[in-house]
Amino acid sequence: MIKEITAQELEPQSFIREKVDQIAGTVGDGRAINALSGGVDSSAVTLLGHRALGERLRTVLVENGLMRAGEADQVVAFFRDLGVTVEVVDARAEFFGALKGLTDPEAKREAITQTFYRQVFGRLVRESGAKHLLQGTILTDVDETVAGIKRQHNVFEQLGIDPQEAFGYRILEPLIQLRKDGVRKLGQALGLPNELFARIPFPGPALAARVIGEVTPERVETVRLATQVVERLLSGYGAFQYLAILHEDRVTGMRDSRRDFGQQIEVRSWNSLDARTAKPTPLKFETLEQVAEEIIHAVPGVVSVTYNIAPKPPSTIEAV
Amino acid sequence: MIKEITAQELEPQSFIREKVDQIAGTVGDGRAINALSGGVDSSAVTLLGHRALGERLRTVLVENGLMRAGEADQVVAFFRDLGVTVEVVDARAEFFGALKGLTDPEAKREAITQTFYRQVFGRLVRESGAKHLLQGTILTDVDETVAGIKRQHNVFEQLGIDPQEAFGYRILEPLIQLRKDGVRKLGQALGLPNELFARIPFPGPALAARVIGEVTPERVETVRLATQVVERLLSGYGAFQYLAILHEDRVTGMRDSRRDFGQQIEVRSWNSLDARTAKPTPLKFETLEQVAEEIIHAVPGVVSVTYNIAPKPPSTIEAV
Repeated sequence: MIKEITAQELEPQSFIREKVDQIAGTVGDGRAINALSGGVDSSAVTLLGHRALGERLRTVLVENGLMRAGEADQVVAFFRDLGVTVEVVDARAEFFGALKGLTDPEAKREAITQTFYRQVFGRLVRESGAKHLLQGTILTDVDETVAGIKRQHNVFEQLGIDPQEAFGYRILEPLIQLRKDGVRKLGQALGLPNELFARIPFPGPALAARVIGEVTPERVETVRLATQVVERLLSGYGAFQYLAILHEDRVTGMRDSRRDFGQQIEVRSWNSLDARTAKPTPLKFETLEQVAEEIIHAVPGVVSVTYNIAPKPPSTIEAV
Repeated sequence: MIKEITAQELEPQSFIREKVDQIAGTVGDGRAINALSGGVDSSAVTLLGHRALGERLRTVLVENGLMRAGEADQVVAFFRDLGVTVEVVDARAEFFGALKGLTDPEAKREAITQTFYRQVFGRLVRESGAKHLLQGTILTDVDETVAGIKRQHNVFEQLGIDPQEAFGYRILEPLIQLRKDGVRKLGQALGLPNELFARIPFPGPALAARVIGEVTPERVETVRLATQVVERLLSGYGAFQYLAILHEDRVTGMRDSRRDFGQQIEVRSWNSLDARTAKPTPLKFETLEQVAEEIIHAVPGVVSVTYNIAPKPPSTIEAV
């Protein structure tokens, strides 16, 4: 049973001292490794780990080809400013190889998870020689997956490390007593930049969750360009989340005065408190027209743009 | 070379007398047949033919299963009020049989045309023993397809009637010197009901043009229910055209608090003068939300509704 520390109870400075000491004590003069996504959880763990271990913590950012425009560079720059070196590992070919031909949403999600753990991060862990893994697991993750003792075995299995061989590996989860609001409070105390907290939610499978049908480099690039327009134009309306989705359906369009099939981008912007229920943001019609025009201008092959007008439920926030 | 009669030049009463005399003279004491779609052209031809031939003109309405809710009944009732009996021929099985498995828009369009001419109307013509066909061809149709002398041969070929055997058949096209505005003026003089002129444009392949992917009875019923909501709620905004499209893409939705894949309806409403360019109607957001809610309520399986926000070009009015 994990003892929860609520955001209210959390005293960030003493929590930081305690976790830094624990990490330093556990790792000793060994080495550790962690994967940084740029989210608040993995960012907080990265800073705790570096305070404890300095250069003996290797922090990798896996470039899966599914991130938004400039996202990897931005995360690396944030951490460079905080004195932390982040190593970017280009694994685009592996992710797109695993996604090739898949159209079922569950199969796509599974391919991304498997590629990350078993193929890419598993290999990095084995090659690094580090026996300690730092992970940004929070209490909500534990609630949502399997509880208790079984979890560590699962992680090694996911990494493709034999349970026998796994003897000696240790997983450190310094955030496991916190929930999201606690991690935010901790992150601010650790000096994480404000931009990081202000970011709208972004799904685990990244832009692959915004592509209906097969996830190819070209199709991800299409939705990436559309996402860039949507995030730029809709950031000022206080929406909970706003996104672009590339449809698989082809629709008739005009190119050089001739009928031609083209692609459709669906734009969603949600007003919501907790993501459990949500309503489309009532944007002005001129704003919607501007979004459509800029997407058509910026994204090759797009002839049609729609705006979601249905609530959740029965819709969901993401389409895939 | 066909001599055009402009709407301005047209004197409806003398035009009607002249065409009624021509039809009566040509058909003599024989019989004629025509297909009524409910559009202005075929409606005007039906009335001219019945003035000339009375019960010797057999007027059929082919129920292809692709019409809007209540459309066939409405047309039959219009003509019953005008003293004309319209025979409804149920050909739904033949149309859906021809459309089975087809997803390419051109293939679907071709299947509908072939089924109408070669299978259904061709059979009706042969069985009726009528040697005279009345058709609502207008000058714009001639401009848009093949010109001149070849056309009549083509029609017989389309009907599956051997050119040898076709000897003795005659096609009468009383509207061929007119364009759309002329036919409207004529139709009013013939006493066609105002509802018929006020109707928004509707494509030849009917609701099949509003279904992305395979056209099945179930999928047509889905878009038919959505069309009914859209036409009811958007008729008062002075839009040039408004429609519902059923997508093939499946999107995530919630059913009984569980994730489930559902269907998406796209709503389009166009402001336009001549259909060559068009802009989405800037509807109030409450109207859009009402449209979405009523579609979700009325149409089983729909979890997502979008509204088109792109102009034509690069979009087109219809999606298929």
